[in-house]
Amino acid sequence: MKNLNIKIIFQMMGFLLIFNGLFMLISAGVSYYYKDGATEGIFFAGIITIMAGLISRFTTKNFKKRINKQEGYIIVTLGWVFMSLSGSLPYLFSEAIPSFTNAFFETMSGYTTTGASILNDIESMPQGILFWRSTTHWIGGMGIIVLTIAVLPLLGIGGMQLFAAEAPGPSADKLHPRITDTAKRLYLIYLGLTVAEAVLLKLAGMSIFDAANHAMSTLSTGGFSTKNASVAFWNDKPIIHYIITIFMIIAGTNFVLTYFAFRGKLNNVFKDEEFRAYILNIIGISVIVALIIYFKADVSNLATETQLIDHPMVYGRLESAFRHAFFQVASVITTTGFVSADFTVWTHFLTILFFILMFFGASAGSTSGGIKFVRHIIMIKNGILEFKRSMHPSAIIPVWYNGKTVSQDIVFNIMAFVILYLIVFALGSLVFGLLGLDFITAIGGSASSLGNVGPAFGQLSPVNNYDSLPSLGKWWSAFLMLLGRLELFTVLILFTPYFWKTGKF
Amino acid sequence: MKNLNIKIIFQMMGFLLIFNGLFMLISAGVSYYYKDGATEGIFFAGIITIMAGLISRFTTKNFKKRINKQEGYIIVTLGWVFMSLSGSLPYLFSEAIPSFTNAFFETMSGYTTTGASILNDIESMPQGILFWRSTTHWIGGMGIIVLTIAVLPLLGIGGMQLFAAEAPGPSADKLHPRITDTAKRLYLIYLGLTVAEAVLLKLAGMSIFDAANHAMSTLSTGGFSTKNASVAFWNDKPIIHYIITIFMIIAGTNFVLTYFAFRGKLNNVFKDEEFRAYILNIIGISVIVALIIYFKADVSNLATETQLIDHPMVYGRLESAFRHAFFQVASVITTTGFVSADFTVWTHFLTILFFILMFFGASAGSTSGGIKFVRHIIMIKNGILEFKRSMHPSAIIPVWYNGKTVSQDIVFNIMAFVILYLIVFALGSLVFGLLGLDFITAIGGSASSLGNVGPAFGQLSPVNNYDSLPSLGKWWSAFLMLLGRLELFTVLILFTPYFWKTGKF
Ligand SMILES: [K+]
Ligand SMILES: [K+]
Repeated sequence: MKNLNIKIIFQMMGFLLIFNGLFMLISAGVSYYYKDGATEGIFFAGIITIMAGLISRFTTKNFKKRINKQEGYIIVTLGWVFMSLSGSLPYLFSEAIPSFTNAFFETMSGYTTTGASILNDIESMPQGILFWRSTTHWIGGMGIIVLTIAVLPLLGIGGMQLFAAEAPGPSADKLHPRITDTAKRLYLIYLGLTVAEAVLLKLAGMSIFDAANHAMSTLSTGGFSTKNASVAFWNDKPIIHYIITIFMIIAGTNFVLTYFAFRGKLNNVFKDEEFRAYILNIIGISVIVALIIYFKADVSNLATETQLIDHPMVYGRLESAFRHAFFQVASVITTTGFVSADFTVWTHFLTILFFILMFFGASAGSTSGGIKFVRHIIMIKNGILEFKRSMHPSAIIPVWYNGKTVSQDIVFNIMAFVILYLIVFALGSLVFGLLGLDFITAIGGSASSLGNVGPAFGQLSPVNNYDSLPSLGKWWSAFLMLLGRLELFTVLILFTPYFWKTGKF
Repeated sequence: MKNLNIKIIFQMMGFLLIFNGLFMLISAGVSYYYKDGATEGIFFAGIITIMAGLISRFTTKNFKKRINKQEGYIIVTLGWVFMSLSGSLPYLFSEAIPSFTNAFFETMSGYTTTGASILNDIESMPQGILFWRSTTHWIGGMGIIVLTIAVLPLLGIGGMQLFAAEAPGPSADKLHPRITDTAKRLYLIYLGLTVAEAVLLKLAGMSIFDAANHAMSTLSTGGFSTKNASVAFWNDKPIIHYIITIFMIIAGTNFVLTYFAFRGKLNNVFKDEEFRAYILNIIGISVIVALIIYFKADVSNLATETQLIDHPMVYGRLESAFRHAFFQVASVITTTGFVSADFTVWTHFLTILFFILMFFGASAGSTSGGIKFVRHIIMIKNGILEFKRSMHPSAIIPVWYNGKTVSQDIVFNIMAFVILYLIVFALGSLVFGLLGLDFITAIGGSASSLGNVGPAFGQLSPVNNYDSLPSLGKWWSAFLMLLGRLELFTVLILFTPYFWKTGKF
């Protein structure tokens, strides 16, 4: 710890705060345009955040540019916390969300792209605040792209090294030069896709405000909506569902592959094992869900049960069943969490299935949360090979992935990650139980928070929100979101003695 | 497959059938003594089973004594199936359980020491049949002791090699000579402990019949009772609860350690990491549960809710809370599944906790099911070390267990086992969901069947039974029991190509 370069940490925090503050000023502009009454609050939040950032940078001006692993870990976790603390100021100053617990929860849910909300009447919120809410998703998505593609592999977290080898990004030990280069290209794609989706949604019948917000929420796999009923508000406009579904799937794809696709290297995309597994699972599971909805759970009947969601059968029952199945499967697998129908009331089987889907996650290098396909693939391949190994105990039988053998260390790291994920899930459920939540609410809430999905089950089902959680439950949920978003190790390592014991690595 | 020694497989099956048939004759004797009307049926089941065994052995008389891994796997799985098929004959012939599905379920539940039952009125069954039912537990327990201590380590299954190193048993490659030696000693302990518990239960106020049956069910961590209310029948006799609790804990202890204890080497026992974790967890969790029952869930109130279980406070509320907590925690952790109170209606927190306990399992080398402490210990230690490894990526950092380093292969095998266990649990739940079970019944039933616990949640809660399952659900549950009992790999490997591809290993 003696060699910790604290100044560079504050330099980074300062940079993040200024960056965050500038985005607040944009939201203040939106607020001003709509004359929603929240302009002053959002504006001052932005100014104060920028000033805090400037102070942080000026007081640590003579910092050394050397950065090591230890500082890397601290910057990542602290960065997310600083963003969430400053990001809650617009809610607090505008008094749109007066309680600090609620404002912090909503902000953490935003930056972690979870999309769980404590708002009971979203539609009554000032437009500037709703825009800021979607912006936290969008910024969180940017953060996670650079994190998983450029930073985590260097830190050796959760098997992400594996995937780094495929990326056009850095493979050396220095953080700076090539990260910014890679990040710039990926951000351009991220921005371009957001604009493209917003335009399409506008053309399909959304207002420009709703279109922009939903595009930001989609690309970040966040899930905040501007409507109380989420995307179900547009259940009479199937084309909107299809646009959002396609963009959710794109958002759940490794951005490096999307970059390849834009450069015309489609072969690289379709040969990628993770992408293939991801797409085939979405299609396969959607078909199963659609058949079950069609034969067992008439979507149109659900309007009366939930009293919130209307289900007009625009193109008939079959299309409706397929569309909602496709939408919800993509929404949960990509951990976006948009809602077109209450998937928790379809059938018992589908409740169990969607609960399991909470543990899927989409692709590494995307904005999605959860365990992610690359880990599932390695884990299952390795599990099957274990049978071969027990028949040939002396042979060395490695796992193959994308045409290369995977080192033992990485397989180890991935299995340890998954086991740790499940242990945290179990502890997460226990704490929710201790706070008085019932069985399915507790385990669903834990899985959904940790996987950055958003909607869960029971009291936290798609037609409810997280406001009914006790105060401590909100903090616990926010902590789980952060853990899940930063791939567990990044946060938890700060609590181990190994991290603090030595100054040099 | 060309070199498969089929004759030795049938020799072994013949041996098992004769052995099983002889035990049926004992139950026929019990039936005769009580004049319960089932004597003839049980007697003929025994004779037919013995004859089938003799035929199996005589027709394969000129077998080669060479046995390899492949045959080992087949013998283990097929053995359990043959036992369950023949073991259901007493139920069928006596017409105590006329349906084949039900009879097979009850028998598989017996041999796997799961203790899930389809009987709606246990107390109306002929004594001979109840005795046979407990006998299937007891035989299953014998089978699993020799399996985990002597056979599985040789087959290299699920990290059991680790534990084999500690055992006084075989470490060479030959199955025969030392196995029988070790087995004999452990069986003497098993028999001795069963007799001891039966005597104590008799002294504490049970009838000799109930005492014998419960002793067999305890030592095998099976859980079949002779009463509809299970051990709750004796809720007015706390001493019976304490006796059973202590013997459940002994039954969940590695029998090799118990052997050391009998030889006075108590140091070996208390230095064993698994034993320490096992005991400390039972004590710690019992205390937490007792406090929650005491302050949050008055045990005495539950009698009216469930209408089955009476809870007299013999020594006051505090003792009652502690006793039921201790009993149920030990019952679920050791996967015995005896019931003194309906633990699924205490509090939401306790429901979640007991659900998680279903995944614990007691010690390797005991008769308990589930994942077991040795695996949890290695897994958690390795998970924590993964943090150290990510700080020092070039260092080799092994897991230590009982004063020795654990080889990478074994850690790998254990993690693969746990992940496979959880995947099977998830699939198990999905199938139950497909058969129409609700969420908590499906996931509880899957966890309980796979972990060989017995009681579960919802429709399969401690005050219900498995008869309400649809027919296919009973077969699926029985299959999960077998998978869990034989540590997954043993059964599942038969479905892999690796197993059948080569004739020589
Ligand atoms: K989300
Ligand atoms: K049991």
